[in-house]
Amino acid sequence: MRIAIAALMLAAASAHAQDLMPLPASVTPGEGALVIDTGFQITMTGYQEPRLRAAAARVVARIARQTGLPLSGAFEPDAAATATLVLDTRAPGEAVQSPAADESYTLEVTTQQARISANEPTGIMRGIETFLQLIRPGEKGFVVPAIRIEDRPRFAWRGLMIDSSRHFMPLGVIRRNLDGMAAVKLNVLHWHLSDDQGFRVESKVFPRLQQMGSDGRFYTQDQIREIIQYARDRGIRVVPEFDVPGHSAAMLAGYPELAAGPGPFQIIRTWGVHDPTLDPTRDEVYDFLDKFIGEMADLFPDPYFHIGGDEVNGKQWNANPAIQEFKRAHNFATNEDLQLYFTRRVQELVRKHGKKMIGWDEILHAGVPKDVVIHSWRGAKSLAEAARQGNPVILSSGYYIDLMQPASQHYAVDPLNGPAADLTPEQQKLILGGEACMWAEYVNAETVDSRIWPRTAAIAERLWSARTVTDPESMYRRMAAVSRELDWLGLQHRSNYIPMLDRIAGTAPVSAVKTVADVVEPVKGYARNRGHKYTALSPLNHMVDAARPESDTAREFATLVDAALKGDKAAAARVREKLAVWRANDARLAPAYGGSFLLAEVAPISQDISALGGAGIEALDYIAARKHAPRAWIEKQQALIERAKQPRAELLIMIVAPVEKLVNAAK
Amino acid sequence: MRIAIAALMLAAASAHAQDLMPLPASVTPGEGALVIDTGFQITMTGYQEPRLRAAAARVVARIARQTGLPLSGAFEPDAAATATLVLDTRAPGEAVQSPAADESYTLEVTTQQARISANEPTGIMRGIETFLQLIRPGEKGFVVPAIRIEDRPRFAWRGLMIDSSRHFMPLGVIRRNLDGMAAVKLNVLHWHLSDDQGFRVESKVFPRLQQMGSDGRFYTQDQIREIIQYARDRGIRVVPEFDVPGHSAAMLAGYPELAAGPGPFQIIRTWGVHDPTLDPTRDEVYDFLDKFIGEMADLFPDPYFHIGGDEVNGKQWNANPAIQEFKRAHNFATNEDLQLYFTRRVQELVRKHGKKMIGWDEILHAGVPKDVVIHSWRGAKSLAEAARQGNPVILSSGYYIDLMQPASQHYAVDPLNGPAADLTPEQQKLILGGEACMWAEYVNAETVDSRIWPRTAAIAERLWSARTVTDPESMYRRMAAVSRELDWLGLQHRSNYIPMLDRIAGTAPVSAVKTVADVVEPVKGYARNRGHKYTALSPLNHMVDAARPESDTAREFATLVDAALKGDKAAAARVREKLAVWRANDARLAPAYGGSFLLAEVAPISQDISALGGAGIEALDYIAARKHAPRAWIEKQQALIERAKQPRAELLIMIVAPVEKLVNAAK
Repeated sequence: MRIAIAALMLAAASAHAQDLMPLPASVTPGEGALVIDTGFQITMTGYQEPRLRAAAARVVARIARQTGLPLSGAFEPDAAATATLVLDTRAPGEAVQSPAADESYTLEVTTQQARISANEPTGIMRGIETFLQLIRPGEKGFVVPAIRIEDRPRFAWRGLMIDSSRHFMPLGVIRRNLDGMAAVKLNVLHWHLSDDQGFRVESKVFPRLQQMGSDGRFYTQDQIREIIQYARDRGIRVVPEFDVPGHSAAMLAGYPELAAGPGPFQIIRTWGVHDPTLDPTRDEVYDFLDKFIGEMADLFPDPYFHIGGDEVNGKQWNANPAIQEFKRAHNFATNEDLQLYFTRRVQELVRKHGKKMIGWDEILHAGVPKDVVIHSWRGAKSLAEAARQGNPVILSSGYYIDLMQPASQHYAVDPLNGPAADLTPEQQKLILGGEACMWAEYVNAETVDSRIWPRTAAIAERLWSARTVTDPESMYRRMAAVSRELDWLGLQHRSNYIPMLDRIAGTAPVSAVKTVADVVEPVKGYARNRGHKYTALSPLNHMVDAARPESDTAREFATLVDAALKGDKAAAARVREKLAVWRANDARLAPAYGGSFLLAEVAPISQDISALGGAGIEALDYIAARKHAPRAWIEKQQALIERAKQPRAELLIMIVAPVEKLVNAAK
Repeated sequence: MRIAIAALMLAAASAHAQDLMPLPASVTPGEGALVIDTGFQITMTGYQEPRLRAAAARVVARIARQTGLPLSGAFEPDAAATATLVLDTRAPGEAVQSPAADESYTLEVTTQQARISANEPTGIMRGIETFLQLIRPGEKGFVVPAIRIEDRPRFAWRGLMIDSSRHFMPLGVIRRNLDGMAAVKLNVLHWHLSDDQGFRVESKVFPRLQQMGSDGRFYTQDQIREIIQYARDRGIRVVPEFDVPGHSAAMLAGYPELAAGPGPFQIIRTWGVHDPTLDPTRDEVYDFLDKFIGEMADLFPDPYFHIGGDEVNGKQWNANPAIQEFKRAHNFATNEDLQLYFTRRVQELVRKHGKKMIGWDEILHAGVPKDVVIHSWRGAKSLAEAARQGNPVILSSGYYIDLMQPASQHYAVDPLNGPAADLTPEQQKLILGGEACMWAEYVNAETVDSRIWPRTAAIAERLWSARTVTDPESMYRRMAAVSRELDWLGLQHRSNYIPMLDRIAGTAPVSAVKTVADVVEPVKGYARNRGHKYTALSPLNHMVDAARPESDTAREFATLVDAALKGDKAAAARVREKLAVWRANDARLAPAYGGSFLLAEVAPISQDISALGGAGIEALDYIAARKHAPRAWIEKQQALIERAKQPRAELLIMIVAPVEKLVNAAK
């Protein structure tokens, strides 16, 4: 029995695949299970190379971490008949991985042995992650269920963009996130390396770039090479982005002569769209970019090169008479025309240095060359337009994980839905895939993991698995398992939570602080900077930084309330328990408000959470007694609910909606 | 007002010192507070050296971690007038730190500046830790309260022994535990580097020691030097131990000709006292030890050298006719006499290589030379005997943290109490201090931090603070703050807890697994290996490995029950809440028992925890109703309580005693 996994068929298919994320293309359950114990051995057949050997060593270390079994030196060179796991590779694959890489693999597990077969090492990397997700405690020890999986990705470009410019991300952050990406089968690290707030790569040709543009926080070329190797070892490409002609203040700090406006320039510490912009009319600028792109094209082996191109406000162009004259001379009606001129010239340079150019969707213009990849971020419309125009395109609109939206919202965004649904099959092929984008205005090394993970796993599944895999409930269940796996891998999205709450707590019991944190979320979209002027130097140590983008507690509570309102007594009892905890919680924090400014700012929220707990219990009492709640009571609760819906301390209380349902049911 | 802090005076003294551990010798509260913000600067005056500069950099990094404030490059070379923190050092101190190091310091904090003054860098290291413990969130931002602290240790030798032999401890474990030691002002890492189960240091003179005795898991000499420097940077000495003549199977694996019995020998994988022993009668053995001790004495600069000397079972000696003949020829009546002969000859070698010898208390004998330090472990009696005999002595009896006893029990052990109380002041001066001992039969790199911390902080306070500082309630409160600080430092005693429970949980909700884990403790003393044959290769992934040595939840519950039984209504309500959670908990786990062998083994415990929850609630109902519980009910609960007191899965349920109190009160 072979089963193509689709949402509705999943439950019927197999409990074996229940923790897999992304879901494989096809799963055939077997009988029995393979035992994983201290005798675990791994071997290789077929084509062999050092990164396969390194992958084998990682498998051993990760099983040891996952299971607690003392394993070491479990690699056996010639044990194809007896090894627990065989990695069987046909051929070497590309010297530099591209979107053409063959990531397909077959995983066959019997009670005797597991075998991952792939045409090239990249497929082996994907199969390894599936194998590791299948290990679980069985009745007598750890096992992998007998199974046959055939798997391949739906889209060739499945990326995560990390912004190292706005907050510098140390190498450890990049490494552990590459591990996380590999775990969910993402294959592109799009590295945003320059912006107004920092230029982050050592240039030997133009050393003032990092000297004047980074506060000393940049990656040396050796470190870049190390990261590229680390990524390649995991079947991940590294695509650099150097943003021009806007978002370039940090570049211009060292080379103000390239600017369209008068310098000097310095690193900008505030967020938003700023004025400093390259001058697109002067040959010196292209001479600079020629040498710079040449240097970076050598450093980054990937065939693609991202030149940004977004959010040019045009102020410096408008204010510069020479540029205005240039526009007139060239018959450029708008700054968009001028940017197209710039884009074309930059693209010639990028092509000259052997790369394909990518730019944000601002560069999409009727005249843009057909081999330029458009990176769609301002809406899926540009995705369809680009493909219709014949340009390859990547989707990030809908995948901006800095906006603090729920995983289900990202999960529902399919590159082939919406405007792209009308494309011809040929045009649809131009849609290479997508990227989650981790912009770094409000994240630093301490918090970034908790913004990327686990939600990015949902985007990874969208881009890997069948289009029909869309059930959010299944996604959330499997994402919880992935979150646990990522913790074992060293991601800090879970482990940094309590220490950050400890910092806020002062003398309050941290368990009570956690009760608040568990049911709040940061404000959504671009709401965070309103009324509070953040800069690159602002501490990110508030409750809004510790709170998770998505409250599991609140989501589960909403489900329980729905069940309770449909008459499920057990659910009603658990709803009551939770409400009781919230009702009692503020009293535990109140004595400590005076002692901690970080706690005091959430006092109104904590008080409302306790009030909502009380309102919910009273509503349950009315419902249980089959009484209508009096009008005065209802009005009081509605006032509470309205207040509790307002953001305070840049936080939203996520249990308001289900409590409102209870109150309405008591009417 | 200057206050010498004693237990009873503490509350009166100052809320400022409320989180300090170990408590300083004297604290004088001031007015106001020093602000710690992004403008934080640190500078040095007086004597300067690289490790002070490194300490300053660590202070900046740790404040950033602790507060979340973005600090970097906050060191200012010439800012004595304006810096937030001044490190003022008089002189360089010893080239190699010894117990004579001057660790005293003065910390003076005004609203304008903090200043740590010390005679030598070691005192600065201690003052830094006090300063960091004083940082807290105030009403408007982070502050350090104005204060004057004068401080110095009570004992010069305050150690932690780490056993890297029975389970190899990677360098990261050693480094982070050195950070933890520094945080609680411990100053000696006693490093147990050889035993039957492993020889862990590279010897260039006798390379078969590590080749045959370590499974490839040993520290290179460069790594040892790196750790010694890391320790010295934090004012910590590193005292190596190479255990002879017993506990030497791993040494004899490479050099069987040194043994008293016939070889070959190999690494032993089981625990306990084993037979392989050096032959004390042959000159080749002393030639070997001469060269070996010479090599290690060069590698480890500390003036002390630990030769073990414990647990010689004498079987190989008794079975060897030549050794029996040697005993007769030398008029040695017992094997103890023969070991004394060995000890004296080894001590000559240790002295020849410029070191003072330490040995476990088995080497204490009327004839042992007066400059040998006795390490008391089998009872405090040997401590007093050694001092009476004129030998310096270190206490570890009562500080064996592998025995899973509560912090309060270790805290109550004072080197100058018990048999030592009768010593003369001169004799008492021979008591150098003590060491917590982390023997490694049942710990590995994943679990070791949770066995060392936070309990070792209580021992550290015993050895640093005044003898009169003995209140366990204050100790537990401050130890909780230290535990949080250690988490920020990178210790994994807290962060590994949930991942280990995740591994056990299988498909069960980890919160329900945690509810069980929170109220159990590993069996105490040497009970663990009974009925279960552990070896060095046994997985340490069971609930007994995840459970903390001491259940905070159970301790706090016991306090609540006492309050409730004295009529505290609020306490009674909280007792009831907790009992209700336990009562409901097993139902959440039951569906998952079949899916995980690691969970299934705790099923009986989980069931009893829920039964105890029910018993407690029913008892509260009888008490509240002022009714006598019926005899049948009482008998049923007593049977439950007796069963629940028995260890299962090597675990103890720690809420049995308080529930028993409730049941008795309902009689």
